[in-house]
Amino acid sequence: MRILALSGSLRRASHNRALIRAAAAELPPTVTLEEWDGLADVPPYDEDADVEPAPYAVERLRDALADADAVLISTPEYNASMPGVLKNALDWASRPFPANALREKPVAVVGASTGLFGAVWAQAETRKVLKAIGADVLEHELPVGLAQDAFGPDGRLVDPDAQARLGAIVQDLVRKASEDVPVAA
Amino acid sequence: MRILALSGSLRRASHNRALIRAAAAELPPTVTLEEWDGLADVPPYDEDADVEPAPYAVERLRDALADADAVLISTPEYNASMPGVLKNALDWASRPFPANALREKPVAVVGASTGLFGAVWAQAETRKVLKAIGADVLEHELPVGLAQDAFGPDGRLVDPDAQARLGAIVQDLVRKASEDVPVAA
Repeated sequence: MRILALSGSLRRASHNRALIRAAAAELPPTVTLEEWDGLADVPPYDEDADVEPAPYAVERLRDALADADAVLISTPEYNASMPGVLKNALDWASRPFPANALREKPVAVVGASTGLFGAVWAQAETRKVLKAIGADVLEHELPVGLAQDAFGPDGRLVDPDAQARLGAIVQDLVRKASEDVPVAA
Repeated sequence: MRILALSGSLRRASHNRALIRAAAAELPPTVTLEEWDGLADVPPYDEDADVEPAPYAVERLRDALADADAVLISTPEYNASMPGVLKNALDWASRPFPANALREKPVAVVGASTGLFGAVWAQAETRKVLKAIGADVLEHELPVGLAQDAFGPDGRLVDPDAQARLGAIVQDLVRKASEDVPVAA
């Protein structure tokens, strides 16, 4: 089973990338969780360019989403909402609508910020957008605030309750994805 | 007086571009309203690239905003929220925070969509984001639904009430901007 992860922050030392790695530590060895590397290459959405074939980076994104059994999004909060970079990628991923690569795909959303609130508004907006796109969105929320102090030297969240909650979220994601896999007769 | 306009849709024949032109028709000749041409060139926001000097397209955006007396944003709705393209530009414009080019700048938000609801969610999210950035956001809302049939051959909105409301919005924007101009002693 393969989970594709998207970090809404492109920064190399991003706390949301760290959160994705902390989530990976909670998965059984049969499940891989990989951060997608192409977010910075996705061009600005333009309906005039929304034709077949789509721009190369968009085709790559759609293929990566289609090939994944589930998706984990970790988002910072910029100006009280989700980053434009992440929204732009989801705008491309939503097309063609409704038969897009996220349709009925299990998706969980978590988030980290250096402020107190752990990107709760950004997470809520991301879930709203994913539902509009037609994804199977998990209702969990994991706000990691004061993110600069949230991770230990082993890459896990210092707060054991938060790390356990992160584990429960990705395990729920795996369960959802397992239910969606057609069982051979 | 100069108003800078941003269309959240990059499409050449965009209804939101048409809405900006319909707004321009309501302004006195002493006020210019110009759509900014550089939105497609703004790179994805990356905190690692958020240094001085900023990428060229970002410097251009910040200069254009700083030079304008007021800003008009016309936004479509993508997946129940504002376009990622527009959000990404506002993410760059918000930096450095709080002394950014939108700080206390009068901004009005309108929107058009081909659906029934005229991008009301996108407009609300855009206003929320602009307030977080520190702009002086007008509380008006102008949802133009069924946008493919909303404009007459003269470029104005076919519905005279909607066109009058659009006029009232830009006139309020001009009034706000006039109040903000320091008066010579």
